[in-house]
Amino acid sequence: MTQLFDRNRALLDGALQAMKTRAFWTPFPEVPSGRFYGETAREDGETAFSDLLGKSFELNGHPCEYHVGKEQSPWGLDLALTYPSASAETLISASQSAFQVWSKNSIHARMGVLLEALVRLNKMSFLIGHATVHATGQGFAMAFQAGGPHAQDRGLEAVAAAYAELTATADRAIWEKPQGRREPIVLEKEWTIVPRGIALTIGCNTFPCWNAYPGLFASLATGNTVIVKPHPMAILPLAITVGVLRQVLEEEGLPADSVLLAADEPEAQATQELVQAPETKLIDYTGSSIFGNWVRSHSGDALVFAEETGVNSVVITGTDDFRGMCANLAFSLALYSGQMCTSPQNIYVPEGGVKTNEGAKSFDEVFAGIAGAIDQLLADPKQASGICGTIVNPVTIDRLKNACSAGRILRKSGQTGVGRSATPLIVAVGEDDSLHKDECFGPVVFAIATKSAEEAIDHAANLAMKKGAITAALYATDNGLIDTAAKAFCLAGANLSVNLTGNIYVNQSAAFSDFHVTGANPAGNASLTDTAFVAQRFRRVMVRWPKGKVTRPASALS
Amino acid sequence: MTQLFDRNRALLDGALQAMKTRAFWTPFPEVPSGRFYGETAREDGETAFSDLLGKSFELNGHPCEYHVGKEQSPWGLDLALTYPSASAETLISASQSAFQVWSKNSIHARMGVLLEALVRLNKMSFLIGHATVHATGQGFAMAFQAGGPHAQDRGLEAVAAAYAELTATADRAIWEKPQGRREPIVLEKEWTIVPRGIALTIGCNTFPCWNAYPGLFASLATGNTVIVKPHPMAILPLAITVGVLRQVLEEEGLPADSVLLAADEPEAQATQELVQAPETKLIDYTGSSIFGNWVRSHSGDALVFAEETGVNSVVITGTDDFRGMCANLAFSLALYSGQMCTSPQNIYVPEGGVKTNEGAKSFDEVFAGIAGAIDQLLADPKQASGICGTIVNPVTIDRLKNACSAGRILRKSGQTGVGRSATPLIVAVGEDDSLHKDECFGPVVFAIATKSAEEAIDHAANLAMKKGAITAALYATDNGLIDTAAKAFCLAGANLSVNLTGNIYVNQSAAFSDFHVTGANPAGNASLTDTAFVAQRFRRVMVRWPKGKVTRPASALS
Repeated sequence: MTQLFDRNRALLDGALQAMKTRAFWTPFPEVPSGRFYGETAREDGETAFSDLLGKSFELNGHPCEYHVGKEQSPWGLDLALTYPSASAETLISASQSAFQVWSKNSIHARMGVLLEALVRLNKMSFLIGHATVHATGQGFAMAFQAGGPHAQDRGLEAVAAAYAELTATADRAIWEKPQGRREPIVLEKEWTIVPRGIALTIGCNTFPCWNAYPGLFASLATGNTVIVKPHPMAILPLAITVGVLRQVLEEEGLPADSVLLAADEPEAQATQELVQAPETKLIDYTGSSIFGNWVRSHSGDALVFAEETGVNSVVITGTDDFRGMCANLAFSLALYSGQMCTSPQNIYVPEGGVKTNEGAKSFDEVFAGIAGAIDQLLADPKQASGICGTIVNPVTIDRLKNACSAGRILRKSGQTGVGRSATPLIVAVGEDDSLHKDECFGPVVFAIATKSAEEAIDHAANLAMKKGAITAALYATDNGLIDTAAKAFCLAGANLSVNLTGNIYVNQSAAFSDFHVTGANPAGNASLTDTAFVAQRFRRVMVRWPKGKVTRPASALS
Repeated sequence: MTQLFDRNRALLDGALQAMKTRAFWTPFPEVPSGRFYGETAREDGETAFSDLLGKSFELNGHPCEYHVGKEQSPWGLDLALTYPSASAETLISASQSAFQVWSKNSIHARMGVLLEALVRLNKMSFLIGHATVHATGQGFAMAFQAGGPHAQDRGLEAVAAAYAELTATADRAIWEKPQGRREPIVLEKEWTIVPRGIALTIGCNTFPCWNAYPGLFASLATGNTVIVKPHPMAILPLAITVGVLRQVLEEEGLPADSVLLAADEPEAQATQELVQAPETKLIDYTGSSIFGNWVRSHSGDALVFAEETGVNSVVITGTDDFRGMCANLAFSLALYSGQMCTSPQNIYVPEGGVKTNEGAKSFDEVFAGIAGAIDQLLADPKQASGICGTIVNPVTIDRLKNACSAGRILRKSGQTGVGRSATPLIVAVGEDDSLHKDECFGPVVFAIATKSAEEAIDHAANLAMKKGAITAALYATDNGLIDTAAKAFCLAGANLSVNLTGNIYVNQSAAFSDFHVTGANPAGNASLTDTAFVAQRFRRVMVRWPKGKVTRPASALS
């Protein structure tokens, strides 16, 4: 049973080491190339994806009372896929049965299953890439990374963090207490890892794998069984994931129902019933704060790990590489049409303009530079479509239209020509306006003039503190301003990127190095993946006895 | 500033090592003897205690709008002590000011202050012992241990756990991402520890130091400032503690207000206002579930770590040392008159009796053995008073009287002759009765007959699962029963002690080895001291920049 652990041990060790040093590391190549994934990987992935369409997705032995599925790709494709599903009651009952076995497994057996599943998922990254394209409306390159290797990185990170914590203290001890001249008291002690129970992973539409894997793998690694509740429009990537996990479990003679899929349809969502079930003890949630608040107030004594609404800002106070800055921001703003939890929304620039290597630039000139860089980036329709992807939710288009009248338009939103698309709108608003003070999810960028650079930092950081923010970016040449911003965003709990140019973007959060979300502002109460994210998913319970006077009890959960 | 850290480094290293191996370790001798604490320590402690009485307790520079204090010792002594105090608003404001400095300290400077304070508190253990005697009504030997070295152990444990977690990942990294044939992307990253804010430690009447130190030291170690709210009848031990911490802080040029005392009086308690203050971000609470529920529902977004009500059980199914078992249980039941969160309350014995090394014993004979052992233990009035201490809350006497009519009395409660006292009552009740199914705090023991040994285990474990339990004890000679009990109590989240005899008791929980409270049943949501207890008290926030392109920002919180 620990054969899988031994086989994948290097993977775990690499992750554990990287998570300590926070240096760059990944076992899963992010480039969708045959060089890494095999000559035929690209075609195989396409074929595998096509073969799935129009059928009932197979999940061997999964509870099935009916089939559901109404996924429509934002790219226009009707997936015509259905999935086996069942009532919350049935799923919970199946999860409870599986818990009796899965929870009692050795740590190494559990780790082996999860590491092996990640390795197999990695080999399927082209298929998962296509599934993610049509679930999220992302371009292929991004969907491959976010649904494939980057999500797998985050899954592995969670497994490694759990392993570190599960093995941090001895599971057996001889405790010998001196008694002066008398014989010492000698106890034997043994600790059992007791998982919480059933965990619910609530997936989102935009990053079904990337946002679900941390909670899913952390809960499984700590011995809980998991019900994966995908967004009704983004089922396939998680169905594939659940399928792989179930297959490895089955091969190991473990209950496949340790991981279940709660597929549903937009009109008949199963989330609320699963959240409210008293058997649900852990919930991982990514989505709006509105539903997040509902989850928190209806989840009883379940622990809720949430990533929610926020407003990410960029503060521009100066740069010694104006073109580099504009190009970098252009990509950050255009990428997936601002539909990332890490996408910048507000750009603060002093009303008097800023100094750059190209001379002084007025407020309008700064945004003209950024708008020009976006135009250039998206000049080629195919590239534009690949970068911007599509707009996954039609409501986003309404929000965009509404924002057009919020102020002076500095860049009009256009279309890529493929699917339901929208390129970044840039609209200048006053600091006293209100629209930019809440999340305006999608390709909407607010340009905000401030009296000074200090005020720009102050306003952006204060908004992060109040409304939440996952990322922040600063462009500055003045060390004093960099210090000020570092302090302000630190207190606001937003990770800050300074003077990024070239092929690295504020939107990007690298597993094993960047903690994604700090937990220190309203954008989320959990951080991927810190110790708090895994340590609360299980408990230790002891049995102790005078040494030699009792035969060691059978391991309490075995 | 790290001189204190270097001086006390061995203490920290010892704790870190012990917490991994869970073997016996303590730097603080538990025997109240001049051999360990110095020839004159005993007398010095008595003198120091007497010198405090009838005066206003000095806390240099502590916010003071008025003096409060109505502590009455359960032993009869009027302490006539008052303490400087102030409104919640004033205390919070002072705590916030201190936070600006304390939170920005280096980890090592913080650790140095806390380790030094623990060492100084240890030297004051005789004084703290006397203060604890009169706060709690415990006998001196117990008060010395529980208020002194054992509490200091728990404080050190929390400091070490925090240190391990704070230093678990690098605070700086060079992140170099390969870009194929192109130059790699190289970022510098830096993480700042961001504490949550103000922490509130709500002390209890019975173990003011032991139960307060873990939260107090964990919050301080992770950079939060703390307001200590003692029980109005048990202020002195925590006032001494706060005084020592403030003195070390002052000597180090750090704000003494990093630790504040919120002393109050029974009729005008300050707890509720402090719990409800939005500035309060962490709460450590020990007490009843009734007030615990109030705290949870009124604490906003503050994290609450709680130890609450529970029902601890003993299951007797057989023994090969009947006298040893009876003597061991007698001490566990008599110690501090059952006023420990770890004291057994229910004793389950099969109705058909059990096998022992003295032959078969009927249900009544088992309890006759225990009752006899209690009588023998308490035969000497002075020893009886030392072991039983006093009844700290008069309501406990009412509860005891009420329990007398619950069933057939197997041992009458008596008095020790000193103070408000009560020795253990043993009353036989039916499993269908109700009184034993909730916590009946104090010297009340319910004897419950079950159909079988298996049913005894089942009923006790089920009650632990439903109503909470911190400890459980089993006496058995049958390996199958031991296995069954180990499994049942593990699932119920109660630490189980098997076949204890001699000088080690189910009530005892040793720092660095036993996790006190599992967090896996209603008796508490936190475990002393696991990683979850410390990891949630702070967050990490990053700033990153292209290597070489930005001068390293001044540490974000400095």
